[in-house]
Amino acid sequence: MKRTLGVCYYPEHWPEDQWAEDAARMAEIGLTWVRIGEFAWSRIEPEPGRLDWGWLDRAIATLGAAGLQVVLGTPTATPPRWMLTRHPDMLALDAQGRPRGFGSRRHYCFSHRPYRVECARIVTLLAERYGQNRHVAAWQTDNEYGCHDTTLSYSPAARNAFRNWLAQRYQSPQALNRAWGNVFWSMDYASFDEIELPYLTVTEANPAHCMAFRRFASDEVASFNRLQTEIIRRHSPFPIAHNYMGAVTEFDHFATGADLDIAAWDAYPLGFLADRVAASAAHKRRFARQGDPDFQAFHHDLYRAVGRGRWWVMEQQPGPVNWAPYNPDPLPGMARLWAWEAFAHGAEAVCYFRWRQAPFAQEQMHAGLLRPDSVAAPAYAEAAVVARELAEMPDVEPAAAPVALIFDYASAWAWATQPQGRGFDYFNLVLDFYKGLRKLGLSVDILPPDARELGQYELMFAPGLATLSEGLRAAVATTKGIAVFGPRSNCKTVEFATPGPLPPNLPGLDCTVARVESLPPDLPVTLSNGGSFLHWREKCEAVDVAETTTDGWPALIGRGPVRYLAGWPDELALERILIALCAERGVATEVMPEGLRCRETARMRFWFNYNSEAVCHAGMEIPAAGVHWQAL
Amino acid sequence: MKRTLGVCYYPEHWPEDQWAEDAARMAEIGLTWVRIGEFAWSRIEPEPGRLDWGWLDRAIATLGAAGLQVVLGTPTATPPRWMLTRHPDMLALDAQGRPRGFGSRRHYCFSHRPYRVECARIVTLLAERYGQNRHVAAWQTDNEYGCHDTTLSYSPAARNAFRNWLAQRYQSPQALNRAWGNVFWSMDYASFDEIELPYLTVTEANPAHCMAFRRFASDEVASFNRLQTEIIRRHSPFPIAHNYMGAVTEFDHFATGADLDIAAWDAYPLGFLADRVAASAAHKRRFARQGDPDFQAFHHDLYRAVGRGRWWVMEQQPGPVNWAPYNPDPLPGMARLWAWEAFAHGAEAVCYFRWRQAPFAQEQMHAGLLRPDSVAAPAYAEAAVVARELAEMPDVEPAAAPVALIFDYASAWAWATQPQGRGFDYFNLVLDFYKGLRKLGLSVDILPPDARELGQYELMFAPGLATLSEGLRAAVATTKGIAVFGPRSNCKTVEFATPGPLPPNLPGLDCTVARVESLPPDLPVTLSNGGSFLHWREKCEAVDVAETTTDGWPALIGRGPVRYLAGWPDELALERILIALCAERGVATEVMPEGLRCRETARMRFWFNYNSEAVCHAGMEIPAAGVHWQAL
Amino acid sequence: MKRTLGVCYYPEHWPEDQWAEDAARMAEIGLTWVRIGEFAWSRIEPEPGRLDWGWLDRAIATLGAAGLQVVLGTPTATPPRWMLTRHPDMLALDAQGRPRGFGSRRHYCFSHRPYRVECARIVTLLAERYGQNRHVAAWQTDNEYGCHDTTLSYSPAARNAFRNWLAQRYQSPQALNRAWGNVFWSMDYASFDEIELPYLTVTEANPAHCMAFRRFASDEVASFNRLQTEIIRRHSPFPIAHNYMGAVTEFDHFATGADLDIAAWDAYPLGFLADRVAASAAHKRRFARQGDPDFQAFHHDLYRAVGRGRWWVMEQQPGPVNWAPYNPDPLPGMARLWAWEAFAHGAEAVCYFRWRQAPFAQEQMHAGLLRPDSVAAPAYAEAAVVARELAEMPDVEPAAAPVALIFDYASAWAWATQPQGRGFDYFNLVLDFYKGLRKLGLSVDILPPDARELGQYELMFAPGLATLSEGLRAAVATTKGIAVFGPRSNCKTVEFATPGPLPPNLPGLDCTVARVESLPPDLPVTLSNGGSFLHWREKCEAVDVAETTTDGWPALIGRGPVRYLAGWPDELALERILIALCAERGVATEVMPEGLRCRETARMRFWFNYNSEAVCHAGMEIPAAGVHWQAL
Ligand SMILES: [Zn+2]
Ligand SMILES: [Zn+2]
Ligand SMILES: [Zn+2]
Repeated sequence: MKRTLGVCYYPEHWPEDQWAEDAARMAEIGLTWVRIGEFAWSRIEPEPGRLDWGWLDRAIATLGAAGLQVVLGTPTATPPRWMLTRHPDMLALDAQGRPRGFGSRRHYCFSHRPYRVECARIVTLLAERYGQNRHVAAWQTDNEYGCHDTTLSYSPAARNAFRNWLAQRYQSPQALNRAWGNVFWSMDYASFDEIELPYLTVTEANPAHCMAFRRFASDEVASFNRLQTEIIRRHSPFPIAHNYMGAVTEFDHFATGADLDIAAWDAYPLGFLADRVAASAAHKRRFARQGDPDFQAFHHDLYRAVGRGRWWVMEQQPGPVNWAPYNPDPLPGMARLWAWEAFAHGAEAVCYFRWRQAPFAQEQMHAGLLRPDSVAAPAYAEAAVVARELAEMPDVEPAAAPVALIFDYASAWAWATQPQGRGFDYFNLVLDFYKGLRKLGLSVDILPPDARELGQYELMFAPGLATLSEGLRAAVATTKGIAVFGPRSNCKTVEFATPGPLPPNLPGLDCTVARVESLPPDLPVTLSNGGSFLHWREKCEAVDVAETTTDGWPALIGRGPVRYLAGWPDELALERILIALCAERGVATEVMPEGLRCRETARMRFWFNYNSEAVCHAGMEIPAAGVHWQAL
Repeated sequence: MKRTLGVCYYPEHWPEDQWAEDAARMAEIGLTWVRIGEFAWSRIEPEPGRLDWGWLDRAIATLGAAGLQVVLGTPTATPPRWMLTRHPDMLALDAQGRPRGFGSRRHYCFSHRPYRVECARIVTLLAERYGQNRHVAAWQTDNEYGCHDTTLSYSPAARNAFRNWLAQRYQSPQALNRAWGNVFWSMDYASFDEIELPYLTVTEANPAHCMAFRRFASDEVASFNRLQTEIIRRHSPFPIAHNYMGAVTEFDHFATGADLDIAAWDAYPLGFLADRVAASAAHKRRFARQGDPDFQAFHHDLYRAVGRGRWWVMEQQPGPVNWAPYNPDPLPGMARLWAWEAFAHGAEAVCYFRWRQAPFAQEQMHAGLLRPDSVAAPAYAEAAVVARELAEMPDVEPAAAPVALIFDYASAWAWATQPQGRGFDYFNLVLDFYKGLRKLGLSVDILPPDARELGQYELMFAPGLATLSEGLRAAVATTKGIAVFGPRSNCKTVEFATPGPLPPNLPGLDCTVARVESLPPDLPVTLSNGGSFLHWREKCEAVDVAETTTDGWPALIGRGPVRYLAGWPDELALERILIALCAERGVATEVMPEGLRCRETARMRFWFNYNSEAVCHAGMEIPAAGVHWQAL
Repeated sequence: MKRTLGVCYYPEHWPEDQWAEDAARMAEIGLTWVRIGEFAWSRIEPEPGRLDWGWLDRAIATLGAAGLQVVLGTPTATPPRWMLTRHPDMLALDAQGRPRGFGSRRHYCFSHRPYRVECARIVTLLAERYGQNRHVAAWQTDNEYGCHDTTLSYSPAARNAFRNWLAQRYQSPQALNRAWGNVFWSMDYASFDEIELPYLTVTEANPAHCMAFRRFASDEVASFNRLQTEIIRRHSPFPIAHNYMGAVTEFDHFATGADLDIAAWDAYPLGFLADRVAASAAHKRRFARQGDPDFQAFHHDLYRAVGRGRWWVMEQQPGPVNWAPYNPDPLPGMARLWAWEAFAHGAEAVCYFRWRQAPFAQEQMHAGLLRPDSVAAPAYAEAAVVARELAEMPDVEPAAAPVALIFDYASAWAWATQPQGRGFDYFNLVLDFYKGLRKLGLSVDILPPDARELGQYELMFAPGLATLSEGLRAAVATTKGIAVFGPRSNCKTVEFATPGPLPPNLPGLDCTVARVESLPPDLPVTLSNGGSFLHWREKCEAVDVAETTTDGWPALIGRGPVRYLAGWPDELALERILIALCAERGVATEVMPEGLRCRETARMRFWFNYNSEAVCHAGMEIPAAGVHWQAL
């Protein structure tokens, strides 16, 4: 499939007489896609039942006339004010029990069934009207599920749906009591209707209760989305995407993604670095105008997995944003670099957000390709450069990486529910492994936790994977490569109990975690061969110990196809261990200069310089914010 | 007008047989004023409708008999418990939606109309009874409007009043939708009754919505106050004051002040330093027992503007207070220094708070001029010294300063609503400019944002002024001095939209802010001539660039009567720029030693040593906590 | 009385066929006690009124058959879910006004009278059934009163009970108004029914109001507990204990303890160090796997006082716990050291918590003596060692210490209500004195604030004692030793007013606190003889000044039997002052190496090495985590 560029556009924000010129300029710089419509419900249906299609018909026609293809969003992330009058109980409740009011966006509870009926109604109307439109070529459901902490709702609607979900899952309160260990503090239930959402308890709720709520909430997102995809598919042949938000782990993207054709995500490298990357102050300072060198790539690889190969960047940061703690201006070149990095990871399309900076409302400080006065902002020219470059590049040709990394949303919930040590964060643990691999110049594939084969992979990593599925267990048992687990892998049952035999209970590995320690940041456990465990270490009984801590416990266990790492390695230990494992399997590694990263596709190798200075590496000189590629 | 001293007194707290001796001692040390009554509602009206005037009559008579003049406070900041029984919905609601209960003070919502009727009733009774009393000489309305975060209330009463206010302002929901840009996220309203207060939304509310609520809330304070001033004026010829609290910016003091004769403020230098001055730990440590060297002066100048020349310190810290995070004892001499600094800035009166330290209730750890056992506390003797010194000093003779600084409450709301970078605080931005000017030995006048002339000023500064009024625009266009704007000046319309043409759009200055950066504290943007921008910088397109950043963007723009500063200067950059500007206009500057400050009146020059050691400067040796004055 | 060991066990968590083997292993390693039942209400009474005694009968029989003695807990800390259906208003409300929901434990409000009736019913049933059981030998009421911040509840039940309590205490609203100084801000009440709980007020509530609420809440715990002890005593001759939680000061343990035979506490040294010991990062790091060297001993001495000589450790940490911010593994030897330290301080019994690590629910990461797979965890062997050692040791022979330290719960409430300086914490102040004494090798007795004699004590310390009782005043006046008060001693009346004459008003000491300073941590007041006051200093007028600050104020006052310390001494100042005082009274001191502590009983001297390395001291070499004892 051809790589393409696009942009997010809000015709309803601008005078109609400006649309044609906007469309012409989009086409002129080589854009293919225009995403529209996802926040426009109040203009499509100004009053309940009164539909105003005219402006949208004309907007699509105008864009299409300029040769652009439309991605049409369903507007369900922004129900109009009249919806709240019809359904006063549609609001989500926050973890303090307060209704999350009207006045911004995403103010609905996923579990509110009458709101779902309204969503089905508007999606049906949209799909009927535009499902065969010759200028529409793709769909987007809703917008950024889970953003602004909206996955978990504590509303009565959520409580009722949760009870039904529990009844389906456990069949009897007695079965639930046994599964959760409710005997522990006399927490037994006699009826599903006695069960509340796990919040505002005196001390922590039963983690099994919390995990059930997490699973339920994730299922609610999936079924909310599926309602829309089923309707759209009945009326339209175009592929359906959703635009996930970065570092949102509260619902299982693989599960929601199963109903979609394309996984898209919204990439805001500078906002994310300031807002949600765990890094030192020095690192944040160094990359303040470039973004973290691995955070985007991680999501690219994740969404390639979620989309089963088909994925987009639906919103690409073009300049300063408005929502992070600090909002610097990207270095010249980054708007190009970010796009190319996405393409190098297999993106089919990259759409900048947004066409023109809005002069009003919440995001008036969020840059666009154009300034509010329609003058080109710096990213405008960079986008045009990318478009020209794309024209000369071959199609997307993904190549399987030599290394696989498991990402499991349920594990993120597990360690959020029971971190056992402050700040134990699954996302950061997996990201540390990902960074370690990237720093060695490796391309990485991300796999879901229910992967059933490890075919070509020389190495597979599953740190912190709370529960090992039967499928993955079988794949590991027969891998030709090496599967590396730990810390904390396979230490919980699906019902969040400690399993017997004790963890990690891995095929072919004689190893038992006898006890664990969570550690403050200033209390590392040093390793005999260099580096340390930080935050977490386990004391294992094991037969085949490859490496030990300086206090004499096994650190790395196993020499065969299955290994177990008994702690959270720091950068130094991880680099050493990864290099050795790669060498063992004949995977070539190359320690990257700081801020330089590379990625291979089937026929090309790409380099990305995230530094604010040029880097010389392997005979190349890559300028600041520069991209370099070479045929293989 | 003669400079005078006073004290705050609570006859209702003490046995009646102690009043006469208290009054005699007040007179003996040279006090002129006694403020009383502002918390006494439950003793004036113990039950609804049952008035007990006797004690107050006798208290006023006793004080008057000693030669003292009474400032009589209206007791509306402390409605008695029975008021809540009559009006259970009178309580303000906090930003979490919780009622702010009875049991301290200021527990009313400004928007509760029946409570206003009660206030009108008690104020009428007071004004009728004491409006011509020969011992009463001034009034105080309520007490410290806005203190304890009481300006904004989220009560049903506030919501209803807000809707009415919106209906008056916008006339139709469609007009409001257009003004606010509600199309942005389908936030359109069909009726004013659909509009909620902007709180507990899923992500941030529309900033135009927030700003409207801020303006409304400020108007509510003004109309609440005006209700009282109109009643008092009908019955009494005495001037009316209100005692504002330091660093409270949630309502427009100029607007409330327009209905008052005197602006008063409550000056707690040590409490403020610990509690609300943004400064380094070293600075806070150095001045812990003296207070910040500029914070009081800034308020003095601000309230001179708010009072249109007439202003008081109604409460002056006399010793340790009870409410700051840490409460040290002032250095010997500070109770005198603080008073003299107020007089040097034009104060008509300084009243110490309070006469005798209370042995009970909330403020029992707050010092007075007397200890709880009626022994003199250190400030007692210092007050007596000031009284003697005043007797020999000429009257207040204010002089216009060479430099003006705009202070605009709406800008404080604007940047609180949309800081764009964590900690971007308007008050601190303006205070930085004020400090920079004071460190050069300059006296400063503060002007309201709707100032219509800049007559004698050589320099005017308006950093962060969100919207340039037509009046000030005209004044700037004709100034004979230099008007310095930026950063962030004139970048929002009154409806909090980005204006066209883009900011700063200043008369006679060819400059456009193309984009902005907010920056973490460790990411300064260095200037070619020394110093840096911190927190905030703008990338401008400009013709006449006087100074650049080291990354090549304009830093200071213009060489004529209008200048624009494209960032938040650090101390070094600001000093350099201010010195150059002053030199350009022939304003003499003199870099002050740390902690030493001066202030000129028409015929005198005053120096204040905020250090805990003596300072030698210009041939003077000023002792620690010392005041020095010289005829000009 | 013989020293003994025990363990906490939950037969209801395990298959019945495992009980006998468990019991056999307990007996085998020398355990005497098994505590059971305290969380088992839902299994004892699965439905309201349907009692299932069978399993508990058999569990007790099985344990007894193995030679073990049962401590039987009343299950009132975990009312079953059906209880909430019967009494929907039984939940406590938190300080934000939110109900504290079902799903963990301690979700009842102490003031809910119908829940008390339910408690009386279940306790009666238990006491009737097991009050004479030959295998039961002690009782425990409820579990960890006050844990998870459960002493203070803001429920309607609490409000109503508080009003009744106030009516009993003050008899008339007028008397209450006078006592509290409600005139201060027109806070007068006309009826007890007008008085709310002191929370969510606009600014701080009247501290007298807060203190009354604190006293009330403490009384509620006492009467809740007394209800159970009275029932048990009617049916059973066995001693009754309660297991207090470390560092819980919200209710008066002396008052609750008066109705009990044994004071027990739950000792989690590593959890407490991470969670509730105020110490430097370096200290926390150094002792991360050992616990603070004084925190346990302090509680041992405190509960020896609360239990009037009879006290236990009811729960002893055996390995990593699950609830602290970080949960390291204790150093090998600590499970033995901790037990021996308790015995050295006079404990009759030490019970490890828990027998086997649970594989489910909230505490599945909390270690036991056994792992979840029943394999022995490290503490298992250590417990066995202690049991063998105990067998050869003499009975508990307490000896009076030379030094006494007052601990007063009401003072903790006083300074929490009105700290006057951020972080002024009574518990830490007293603990600092305790640590200072321990570092000199001293054994310490803790006394209640109403102690009426100081017979044998050479030195008594009462820092921060808010109100000096008549009894203690008389004791001090006649002590043969030295009584050291201050800072902040005797500075409040029982009604939380400033007394007259001004504090400290101590027998035979001419000293008046003229004013006080609270200080930020970086602003010490240095002492002329070395060291500093931190956080707090007082400026006193005094005749007999033994030591001064470098700024010239009295620091230590008095040379006779009563002394006053005018600030919070740092470690250096305190050591110097304590050594001098001890020398004066002939009490031998010996500066301990860091982390080494000792304790004397009547015939033995014990040393405890809290370090992770061996310590050489006085000719002994004590290994890391080692215990050493010597006959005197
Ligand atoms: Zn977005
Ligand atoms: Zn005040
Ligand atoms: Zn416990």
